[in-house]
Amino acid sequence: MTGMSLANYCLRCGHALEVRPAAGALRPVCPQCGRVHFFDPKVAVGVIVERAGRLLLIQRRGEPEMGKWSIPAGFVDAGEDPARAAEREGWEETGLKLQVTALVEVYGRQSPTEGADIFIIYRAAVVGGALAPGDDAAAAEYFGPEHLPELAFASTRRVVARWQAHGGPDSDSV
Amino acid sequence: MTGMSLANYCLRCGHALEVRPAAGALRPVCPQCGRVHFFDPKVAVGVIVERAGRLLLIQRRGEPEMGKWSIPAGFVDAGEDPARAAEREGWEETGLKLQVTALVEVYGRQSPTEGADIFIIYRAAVVGGALAPGDDAAAAEYFGPEHLPELAFASTRRVVARWQAHGGPDSDSV
Repeated sequence: MTGMSLANYCLRCGHALEVRPAAGALRPVCPQCGRVHFFDPKVAVGVIVERAGRLLLIQRRGEPEMGKWSIPAGFVDAGEDPARAAEREGWEETGLKLQVTALVEVYGRQSPTEGADIFIIYRAAVVGGALAPGDDAAAAEYFGPEHLPELAFASTRRVVARWQAHGGPDSDSV
Repeated sequence: MTGMSLANYCLRCGHALEVRPAAGALRPVCPQCGRVHFFDPKVAVGVIVERAGRLLLIQRRGEPEMGKWSIPAGFVDAGEDPARAAEREGWEETGLKLQVTALVEVYGRQSPTEGADIFIIYRAAVVGGALAPGDDAAAAEYFGPEHLPELAFASTRRVVARWQAHGGPDSDSV
Protein backbone atom coordinates (compact mmCIF):
# COMPACT_ATOMS: atom_id res chain seq x y z
CA MET A 1 0.00 0.00 0.00
CA THR A 2 1.40 3.38 -0.94
CA GLY A 3 1.68 6.51 1.16
CA MET A 4 -1.14 8.03 -0.91
CA SER A 5 -3.57 5.32 0.11
CA LEU A 6 -6.04 5.78 2.89
CA ALA A 7 -9.32 4.15 3.72
CA ASN A 8 -11.25 5.47 6.71
CA TYR A 9 -14.85 4.80 5.67
CA CYS A 10 -16.60 2.04 3.76
CA LEU A 11 -17.08 2.82 0.05
CA ARG A 12 -20.27 0.76 0.04
CA CYS A 13 -22.11 1.74 3.27
CA GLY A 14 -20.13 4.67 4.74
CA HIS A 15 -19.36 2.99 8.11
CA ALA A 16 -15.94 3.54 9.72
CA LEU A 17 -13.48 0.80 8.69
CA GLU A 18 -11.34 -1.38 10.98
CA VAL A 19 -8.03 -2.96 10.03
CA ARG A 20 -8.24 -6.75 10.31
CA PRO A 21 -6.60 -9.81 8.74
CA ALA A 22 -8.35 -10.53 5.44
CA ALA A 23 -7.22 -12.45 2.34
CA GLY A 24 -3.68 -12.95 3.60
CA ALA A 25 -2.92 -9.44 4.87
CA LEU A 26 -4.09 -6.71 7.23
CA ARG A 27 -6.74 -4.80 5.30
CA PRO A 28 -9.48 -2.27 6.07
CA VAL A 29 -12.72 -4.19 6.67
CA CYS A 30 -16.22 -2.80 7.25
CA PRO A 31 -17.70 -4.10 10.53
CA GLN A 32 -21.20 -3.14 9.31
CA CYS A 33 -21.45 -4.61 5.79
CA GLY A 34 -18.33 -6.82 5.70
CA ARG A 35 -16.74 -5.23 2.64
CA VAL A 36 -12.95 -5.72 2.49
CA HIS A 37 -11.10 -2.79 0.98
CA PHE A 38 -8.31 -3.92 -1.35
CA PHE A 39 -5.73 -1.35 -2.40
CA ASP A 40 -5.26 -2.15 -6.07
CA PRO A 41 -2.08 -1.09 -7.82
CA LYS A 42 -2.05 2.07 -9.90
CA VAL A 43 -1.13 0.96 -13.41
CA ALA A 44 0.38 3.24 -16.05
CA VAL A 45 1.07 2.44 -19.69
CA GLY A 46 3.54 4.10 -22.04
CA VAL A 47 4.42 3.75 -25.72
CA ILE A 48 7.68 3.66 -27.64
CA VAL A 49 7.00 5.20 -31.05
CA GLU A 50 9.88 5.65 -33.48
CA ARG A 51 10.34 7.45 -36.77
CA ALA A 52 13.62 6.99 -38.65
CA GLY A 53 15.42 6.04 -35.44
CA ARG A 54 14.04 8.93 -33.46
CA LEU A 55 11.81 8.59 -30.40
CA LEU A 56 8.46 10.31 -29.89
CA LEU A 57 8.37 12.36 -26.68
CA ILE A 58 5.85 14.76 -25.19
CA GLN A 59 6.59 17.78 -23.02
CA ARG A 60 4.60 17.87 -19.79
CA ARG A 61 2.20 20.79 -19.52
CA GLY A 62 1.61 20.45 -15.78
CA GLU A 63 3.17 19.39 -12.51
CA PRO A 64 4.85 17.22 -11.51
CA GLU A 65 7.94 17.58 -13.71
CA MET A 66 6.35 20.40 -15.74
CA GLY A 67 8.33 21.26 -18.88
CA LYS A 68 10.29 18.01 -18.91
CA TRP A 69 9.73 15.29 -21.49
CA SER A 70 8.44 11.74 -21.37
CA ILE A 71 7.10 9.05 -23.66
CA PRO A 72 3.31 9.26 -24.15
CA ALA A 73 1.90 7.61 -21.05
CA GLY A 74 -0.94 7.64 -18.57
CA PHE A 75 -3.01 5.67 -16.10
CA VAL A 76 -5.16 2.67 -16.89
CA ASP A 77 -8.70 2.70 -15.50
CA ALA A 78 -10.38 -0.45 -14.23
CA GLY A 79 -11.86 -2.38 -17.14
CA GLU A 80 -9.58 -0.83 -19.78
CA ASP A 81 -7.36 -3.10 -21.86
CA PRO A 82 -3.81 -1.88 -21.18
CA ALA A 83 -2.74 -1.93 -24.85
CA ARG A 84 -5.84 0.09 -25.81
CA ALA A 85 -5.15 2.49 -22.93
CA ALA A 86 -1.62 3.02 -24.32
CA GLU A 87 -3.04 3.80 -27.77
CA ARG A 88 -5.59 6.17 -26.20
CA GLU A 89 -2.93 8.06 -24.26
CA GLY A 90 -0.79 8.38 -27.38
CA TRP A 91 -3.76 9.71 -29.35
CA GLU A 92 -4.73 12.21 -26.65
CA GLU A 93 -1.21 13.53 -26.17
CA THR A 94 0.18 13.48 -29.72
CA GLY A 95 -2.72 13.44 -32.20
CA LEU A 96 -1.34 10.24 -33.72
CA LYS A 97 -3.43 7.11 -34.11
CA LEU A 98 -1.32 4.30 -32.72
CA GLN A 99 -1.45 0.54 -32.92
CA VAL A 100 0.43 -1.46 -30.32
CA THR A 101 2.79 -3.91 -32.04
CA ALA A 102 4.70 -5.46 -29.13
CA LEU A 103 4.99 -5.66 -25.37
CA VAL A 104 8.37 -4.28 -24.30
CA GLU A 105 8.61 -4.46 -20.51
CA VAL A 106 6.75 -4.26 -17.23
CA TYR A 107 8.38 -2.22 -14.47
CA GLY A 108 7.50 -2.21 -10.79
CA ARG A 109 7.59 1.02 -8.82
CA GLN A 110 11.19 1.95 -8.04
CA SER A 111 10.57 5.08 -5.98
CA PRO A 112 7.73 6.35 -3.76
CA THR A 113 7.52 9.53 -5.86
CA GLU A 114 6.56 7.65 -9.02
CA GLY A 115 2.88 7.89 -9.85
CA ALA A 116 2.31 4.24 -10.71
CA ASP A 117 2.96 0.92 -9.01
CA ILE A 118 3.21 -0.88 -12.34
CA PHE A 119 4.38 0.67 -15.62
CA ILE A 120 3.69 -1.36 -18.78
CA ILE A 121 5.65 -0.32 -21.88
CA TYR A 122 4.55 -1.15 -25.42
CA ARG A 123 5.99 -0.50 -28.84
CA ALA A 124 3.46 1.07 -31.22
CA ALA A 125 3.22 2.00 -34.88
CA VAL A 126 1.61 5.17 -36.23
CA VAL A 127 -1.44 4.26 -38.32
CA GLY A 128 -3.03 7.69 -38.77
CA GLY A 129 -3.52 11.16 -37.39
CA ALA A 130 -1.17 14.15 -37.47
CA LEU A 131 1.41 15.12 -34.89
CA ALA A 132 -0.06 17.82 -32.62
CA PRO A 133 0.23 18.05 -28.85
CA GLY A 134 -2.97 17.62 -26.85
CA ASP A 135 -4.38 16.84 -23.40
CA ASP A 136 -1.60 17.34 -20.83
CA ALA A 137 1.16 17.68 -23.48
CA ALA A 138 2.56 21.14 -24.32
CA ALA A 139 4.62 19.77 -27.23
CA ALA A 140 5.13 16.47 -29.06
CA GLU A 141 8.27 15.82 -31.11
CA TYR A 142 10.65 13.11 -32.27
CA PHE A 143 14.19 13.17 -30.85
CA GLY A 144 17.32 11.34 -31.92
CA PRO A 145 19.23 9.36 -29.29
CA GLU A 146 22.03 11.96 -29.21
CA HIS A 147 19.72 14.96 -28.87
CA LEU A 148 17.31 14.05 -26.11
CA PRO A 149 15.71 16.83 -24.04
CA GLU A 150 15.51 16.79 -20.24
CA LEU A 151 13.48 13.72 -19.28
CA ALA A 152 10.77 13.60 -16.61
CA PHE A 153 10.71 10.82 -14.01
CA ALA A 154 13.17 8.02 -13.32
CA SER A 155 10.75 5.66 -15.05
CA THR A 156 11.05 7.58 -18.34
CA ARG A 157 14.83 7.69 -18.06
CA ARG A 158 14.88 3.91 -17.56
CA VAL A 159 12.71 3.32 -20.63
CA VAL A 160 14.69 5.73 -22.81
CA ALA A 161 18.03 4.28 -21.67
CA ARG A 162 16.77 0.85 -22.72
CA TRP A 163 15.67 2.29 -26.07
CA GLN A 164 19.10 3.90 -26.59
CA ALA A 165 20.81 0.58 -25.82
CA HIS A 166 18.58 -1.64 -27.96
CA GLY A 167 16.55 0.51 -30.35
CA GLY A 168 17.41 2.32 -33.50
CA PRO A 169 16.16 2.73 -37.04
CA ASP A 170 16.53 -0.91 -38.01
CA SER A 171 15.46 -2.47 -34.75
CA ASP A 172 12.06 -3.92 -34.03
CA SER A 173 12.75 -4.59 -30.39
CA VAL A 174 13.53 -2.24 -27.52
CA MET B 1 -15.09 0.20 -14.44
CA THR B 2 -16.17 -3.36 -13.76
CA GLY B 3 -19.52 -4.63 -12.59
CA MET B 4 -17.96 -5.39 -9.20
CA SER B 5 -17.03 -1.75 -8.60
CA LEU B 6 -19.16 0.55 -6.53
CA ALA B 7 -18.44 3.71 -4.64
CA ASN B 8 -21.25 5.27 -2.64
CA TYR B 9 -19.34 6.98 0.19
CA CYS B 10 -16.01 8.78 0.45
CA LEU B 11 -13.14 6.55 1.64
CA ARG B 12 -11.51 9.56 3.29
CA CYS B 13 -14.37 11.44 5.01
CA GLY B 14 -17.44 9.18 4.69
CA HIS B 15 -19.65 11.71 2.85
CA ALA B 16 -21.95 10.49 0.06
CA LEU B 17 -20.23 10.68 -3.35
CA GLU B 18 -21.53 12.33 -6.52
CA VAL B 19 -20.60 11.32 -10.06
CA ARG B 20 -18.96 14.24 -11.89
CA PRO B 21 -16.44 14.78 -14.69
CA ALA B 22 -12.94 14.43 -13.24
CA ALA B 23 -9.59 13.63 -14.89
CA GLY B 24 -11.11 12.92 -18.27
CA ALA B 25 -14.04 10.72 -17.23
CA LEU B 26 -17.16 10.60 -15.06
CA ARG B 27 -15.94 9.55 -11.63
CA PRO B 28 -17.28 9.51 -8.06
CA VAL B 29 -16.21 12.76 -6.38
CA CYS B 30 -16.70 13.80 -2.74
CA PRO B 31 -18.56 17.14 -2.48
CA GLN B 32 -17.29 17.55 1.09
CA CYS B 33 -13.53 16.88 0.90
CA GLY B 34 -12.99 16.85 -2.89
CA ARG B 35 -11.48 13.38 -3.09
CA VAL B 36 -11.87 11.80 -6.54
CA HIS B 37 -12.37 8.04 -6.45
CA PHE B 38 -10.40 6.27 -9.18
CA PHE B 39 -11.27 2.67 -9.94
CA ASP B 40 -7.85 1.11 -10.39
CA PRO B 41 -7.50 -2.10 -12.37
CA LYS B 42 -7.29 -5.42 -10.56
CA VAL B 43 -3.95 -6.91 -11.55
CA ALA B 44 -3.10 -10.61 -11.39
CA VAL B 45 0.25 -12.27 -12.01
CA GLY B 46 0.96 -15.86 -13.01
CA VAL B 47 4.07 -17.96 -13.56
CA ILE B 48 5.11 -20.47 -16.19
CA VAL B 49 7.39 -22.99 -14.46
CA GLU B 50 8.69 -25.96 -16.43
CA ARG B 51 10.51 -29.16 -15.56
CA ALA B 52 11.68 -31.39 -18.40
CA GLY B 53 9.08 -29.95 -20.74
CA ARG B 54 6.24 -30.29 -18.26
CA LEU B 55 4.24 -27.38 -16.88
CA LEU B 56 3.62 -26.68 -13.18
CA LEU B 57 -0.10 -26.43 -12.38
CA ILE B 58 -2.07 -26.11 -9.16
CA GLN B 59 -5.51 -27.47 -8.45
CA ARG B 60 -7.93 -24.89 -7.06
CA ARG B 61 -9.10 -25.62 -3.53
CA GLY B 62 -12.03 -23.15 -3.61
CA GLU B 63 -14.57 -21.48 -5.82
CA PRO B 64 -14.68 -20.26 -8.47
CA GLU B 65 -13.60 -23.18 -10.67
CA MET B 66 -12.94 -25.43 -7.67
CA GLY B 67 -11.08 -28.62 -8.58
CA LYS B 68 -9.84 -27.31 -11.91
CA TRP B 69 -6.22 -26.46 -12.58
CA SER B 70 -4.31 -23.27 -13.31
CA ILE B 71 -0.80 -21.92 -13.33
CA PRO B 72 0.26 -20.47 -9.94
CA ALA B 73 -1.28 -17.01 -9.91
CA GLY B 74 -2.84 -14.35 -7.73
CA PHE B 75 -3.60 -10.69 -7.24
CA VAL B 76 -1.02 -7.93 -6.88
CA ASP B 77 -1.51 -5.50 -4.00
CA ALA B 78 -0.74 -1.80 -4.34
CA GLY B 79 2.97 -1.23 -3.78
CA GLU B 80 4.00 -4.79 -4.65
CA ASP B 81 6.45 -5.37 -7.48
CA PRO B 82 4.57 -7.61 -9.94
CA ALA B 83 7.51 -10.00 -10.50
CA ARG B 84 7.94 -10.39 -6.72
CA ALA B 85 4.19 -10.94 -6.37
CA ALA B 86 4.42 -13.75 -8.96
CA GLU B 87 7.25 -15.39 -6.98
CA ARG B 88 5.24 -14.99 -3.75
CA GLU B 89 2.15 -16.62 -5.25
CA GLY B 90 4.24 -19.50 -6.58
CA TRP B 91 5.82 -20.00 -3.18
CA GLU B 92 2.49 -19.90 -1.33
CA GLU B 93 0.75 -22.30 -3.69
CA THR B 94 3.52 -24.77 -4.54
CA GLY B 95 6.21 -24.60 -1.83
CA LEU B 96 8.80 -23.84 -4.51
CA LYS B 97 11.08 -20.81 -4.30
CA LEU B 98 10.88 -19.16 -7.69
CA GLN B 99 12.91 -16.55 -9.50
CA VAL B 100 11.32 -14.71 -12.39
CA THR B 101 13.52 -15.04 -15.48
CA ALA B 102 11.43 -13.37 -18.21
CA LEU B 103 8.28 -11.44 -18.93
CA VAL B 104 6.04 -13.50 -21.20
CA GLU B 105 2.86 -11.53 -21.90
CA VAL B 106 0.33 -9.05 -20.56
CA TYR B 107 -3.33 -9.87 -21.16
CA GLY B 108 -6.29 -7.55 -20.79
CA ARG B 109 -9.57 -8.85 -19.41
CA GLN B 110 -11.39 -10.85 -22.07
CA SER B 111 -14.54 -11.70 -20.14
CA PRO B 112 -16.49 -10.07 -17.30
CA THR B 113 -16.22 -13.28 -15.26
CA GLU B 114 -12.42 -13.13 -15.10
CA GLY B 115 -11.13 -11.90 -11.75
CA ALA B 116 -8.50 -9.49 -13.06
CA ASP B 117 -8.46 -6.59 -15.50
CA ILE B 118 -4.80 -7.18 -16.29
CA PHE B 119 -2.98 -10.53 -16.17
CA ILE B 120 0.83 -10.42 -16.30
CA ILE B 121 2.57 -13.70 -17.10
CA TYR B 122 6.20 -14.42 -16.23
CA ARG B 123 8.49 -17.36 -16.78
CA ALA B 124 10.25 -18.44 -13.57
CA ALA B 125 12.94 -20.87 -12.50
CA VAL B 126 12.85 -23.01 -9.37
CA VAL B 127 15.67 -21.96 -7.03
CA GLY B 128 14.68 -23.82 -3.85
CA GLY B 129 11.88 -25.31 -1.79
CA ALA B 130 10.04 -28.59 -2.25
CA LEU B 131 6.87 -29.20 -4.20
CA ALA B 132 3.91 -29.21 -1.79
CA PRO B 133 0.53 -27.56 -2.31
CA GLY B 134 -0.35 -24.65 -0.03
CA ASP B 135 -2.61 -21.65 0.42
CA ASP B 136 -5.57 -22.01 -1.96
CA ALA B 137 -4.04 -24.97 -3.85
CA ALA B 138 -5.28 -28.53 -3.18
CA ALA B 139 -2.54 -30.08 -5.32
CA ALA B 140 0.53 -28.96 -7.27
CA GLU B 141 2.00 -31.10 -10.07
CA TYR B 142 3.84 -30.96 -13.36
CA PHE B 143 1.92 -31.99 -16.49
CA GLY B 144 3.11 -32.79 -19.99
CA PRO B 145 1.47 -30.97 -22.91
CA GLU B 146 -0.41 -34.13 -23.95
CA HIS B 147 -1.72 -34.94 -20.48
CA LEU B 148 -3.15 -31.68 -19.17
CA PRO B 149 -5.95 -31.77 -16.59
CA GLU B 150 -9.14 -29.68 -16.85
CA LEU B 151 -8.05 -26.06 -16.79
CA ALA B 152 -9.73 -23.26 -14.84
CA PHE B 153 -10.56 -19.93 -16.49
CA ALA B 154 -10.26 -18.82 -20.09
CA SER B 155 -7.14 -16.86 -19.06
CA THR B 156 -5.37 -20.06 -18.00
CA ARG B 157 -6.41 -21.85 -21.18
CA ARG B 158 -4.98 -18.96 -23.23
CA VAL B 159 -1.65 -19.07 -21.36
CA VAL B 160 -1.38 -22.85 -21.59
CA ALA B 161 -2.28 -22.88 -25.29
CA ARG B 162 0.54 -20.42 -25.88
CA TRP B 163 2.88 -22.60 -23.85
CA GLN B 164 1.87 -25.68 -25.88
CA ALA B 165 2.51 -23.80 -29.12
CA HIS B 166 5.85 -22.27 -28.17
CA GLY B 167 7.20 -24.01 -25.08
CA GLY B 168 8.90 -27.31 -24.53
CA PRO B 169 11.94 -28.79 -22.88
CA ASP B 170 14.47 -26.92 -24.99
CA SER B 171 12.67 -23.63 -25.26
CA ASP B 172 13.41 -20.53 -23.25
CA SER B 173 10.47 -18.58 -24.55
CA VAL B 174 6.76 -19.15 -24.23
